[in-house]
Amino acid sequence: MKITLLRSALNEAVGQVSKAVSPRPPIPILGGIKLEADSSGMSLTASDTDISIRSFIPAVVDDQVAINVERAGSVVLQAKFFAEIVRKLPTEEIHLEVHDRFQTTIVSGATEIQLVGFDPEEFPVLPSVREDRVLSLPGSLLKDMIRQTSFAVSTNESTPILTGVHWQLQDGVLKATATDRHRLACSVARTGADPSVQFSDVVISGRTLNELVKILPDQDTMVDIVVDDSQVLFRLDNVLFFARVLDGAYPDTSRIIPRTFKTEFILPAAAFADAIERAYLLSREEKTNIVRLSTLEDGRIELNSSSSEIGRVTETLQTSGITGEPLRISFNSKYFIDALRVIEAEEIFLGFNGPMSPVVLRPRDSEDNLHLILPYRTSG
Amino acid sequence: MKITLLRSALNEAVGQVSKAVSPRPPIPILGGIKLEADSSGMSLTASDTDISIRSFIPAVVDDQVAINVERAGSVVLQAKFFAEIVRKLPTEEIHLEVHDRFQTTIVSGATEIQLVGFDPEEFPVLPSVREDRVLSLPGSLLKDMIRQTSFAVSTNESTPILTGVHWQLQDGVLKATATDRHRLACSVARTGADPSVQFSDVVISGRTLNELVKILPDQDTMVDIVVDDSQVLFRLDNVLFFARVLDGAYPDTSRIIPRTFKTEFILPAAAFADAIERAYLLSREEKTNIVRLSTLEDGRIELNSSSSEIGRVTETLQTSGITGEPLRISFNSKYFIDALRVIEAEEIFLGFNGPMSPVVLRPRDSEDNLHLILPYRTSG
Repeated sequence: MKITLLRSALNEAVGQVSKAVSPRPPIPILGGIKLEADSSGMSLTASDTDISIRSFIPAVVDDQVAINVERAGSVVLQAKFFAEIVRKLPTEEIHLEVHDRFQTTIVSGATEIQLVGFDPEEFPVLPSVREDRVLSLPGSLLKDMIRQTSFAVSTNESTPILTGVHWQLQDGVLKATATDRHRLACSVARTGADPSVQFSDVVISGRTLNELVKILPDQDTMVDIVVDDSQVLFRLDNVLFFARVLDGAYPDTSRIIPRTFKTEFILPAAAFADAIERAYLLSREEKTNIVRLSTLEDGRIELNSSSSEIGRVTETLQTSGITGEPLRISFNSKYFIDALRVIEAEEIFLGFNGPMSPVVLRPRDSEDNLHLILPYRTSG
Repeated sequence: MKITLLRSALNEAVGQVSKAVSPRPPIPILGGIKLEADSSGMSLTASDTDISIRSFIPAVVDDQVAINVERAGSVVLQAKFFAEIVRKLPTEEIHLEVHDRFQTTIVSGATEIQLVGFDPEEFPVLPSVREDRVLSLPGSLLKDMIRQTSFAVSTNESTPILTGVHWQLQDGVLKATATDRHRLACSVARTGADPSVQFSDVVISGRTLNELVKILPDQDTMVDIVVDDSQVLFRLDNVLFFARVLDGAYPDTSRIIPRTFKTEFILPAAAFADAIERAYLLSREEKTNIVRLSTLEDGRIELNSSSSEIGRVTETLQTSGITGEPLRISFNSKYFIDALRVIEAEEIFLGFNGPMSPVVLRPRDSEDNLHLILPYRTSG
């Protein structure tokens, strides 16, 4: 293998695939990136047990030669050092050549680097994915759905299935759900998918999705999602992202979301978020994060938190009218903060069924991003 | 005490004095900030064993009433929560009132906060400093001198005196020196100080100086430095910063800086720094940070580092001519990177006296910022 290529193109591709490199690989070759060059360009591949990523540098990008392949071939290079050094090479034109026993030379200006390489035959192959169920979504929409749910996955490895986000597609409607048993977040989008394409059992680790978010385009560029039994492939321009599907059955969460409420009201989102943040600051000092919410007679609500050592924070907020019973409820304010950070709305709907039942938070005029939070059960 | 004041003014003052609050105070009151208000305005004070800071909010700032004192008085409030909540209060106008047993109320819009306060009589008093030796320096110059030296202090608490920067003033020339026995950094400035003002024994902890840097003005605003035996006071507009002088005698470093060299050359600063950074990346993997520098026949130098597991980096750089003997020397590249980050010059002078003697780095045309680095002693 002997190539000349642009540092910027190599740097971008290395940055993309590096997200699939395990920081502590069980065997050295899994800490590597596989480079494969032929006349069409060069692909880079990295893989850990959950994620595999392939990024392709085409020979020509925007009428500019990005890579010139003098001799085709392949090699595996150690990802950590390779990624760091590529970022710091002094010139845009880079020469890379693989010699005997996969020893690799990189020359950039007056810098010459010799790297120990590994046999690409020993590198794991990419998962194979059947193209039966394919769905297309704008990258920005997929990003939003992940951002609105992945924060709520469980971090407790004793129930691995809850460390993932549950994806379902039915009648063209895509739904993502995450829960850690204390709160639940879900996000819904109407796609143009053919009704014949459907699935109900796809669970992908929150960590994997957070890595995917980093390489998804901000724009409305379409991303293909290919769903197979044990793998999901996200296909972007020049990048393939394979995510492992978690084993096990996700609990049925469809029935726990209440549709009727004993108490409900609307709050301005920003003022509510700021007030909760201040109450949280104090509740955090008590390590409990507990904030109390009470309805007042005049259509206002009061939030308060207290600490015997520091003091007390009391916030009052004007609702646009309280419907139903008076209420006094305690909750973990961190869960509210997390939900309010991802809800994109000027006004928030809150629905309650007494102090012991889950609270529903969502944008005033939409159920596309809904959050359920269990109250903190106190005797007071 | 009962006052109305601007959130922005309070937030700035709290931010300044917070740097003197110990994160783990031995008694609760030392985790506090003392507020003292009278008709002239309000002062805030915080203190740990090394640093004391007082910030003053005058009644009127830029023709605007910053603070209106309805009833004079004082209180101590817990710094961590107070600083966080002040940053997040919803309105610019804040009402603060101290009640019985120092319980304090803060009202801002629809937010009401009750804070447990402490008796200000129990708060430590500020150090007293004699005004015999006073020196004035532009804030930006003082900042530069600290930045150019404080990174080189020792982090080893077994020789406490070396954890500080040594300050000397003689004939109006101020000199700052720091060393951890492996490298030495010094910075020199000609001040307009009267030759009668002099000192040779002032050592201030690097940590203290790094906190001072954060509140020094970027501009050329003058800072008064008042030097007493056990304290140094840095006096800015509305802020007093007291730094404890470390006990003990600083070693005499004046004789270890060589004036003549067996080998010397000039290198372009940016290209040299980049080349060392790349060689460092590889040397870091070997945990040694060792990079070798060799002079070549043709006026170039070669830098290289190697790792049996990863490979080798070789850099060549053009000097503006090598004077003296050929050289081959090994060093800890991290020390070079640290020095090159603070030297402000397009070209760097390097002077050597063989592979076992300290290296001198400084700007080509100035000795005002000089760095001495011990080589790594290898048999090769």
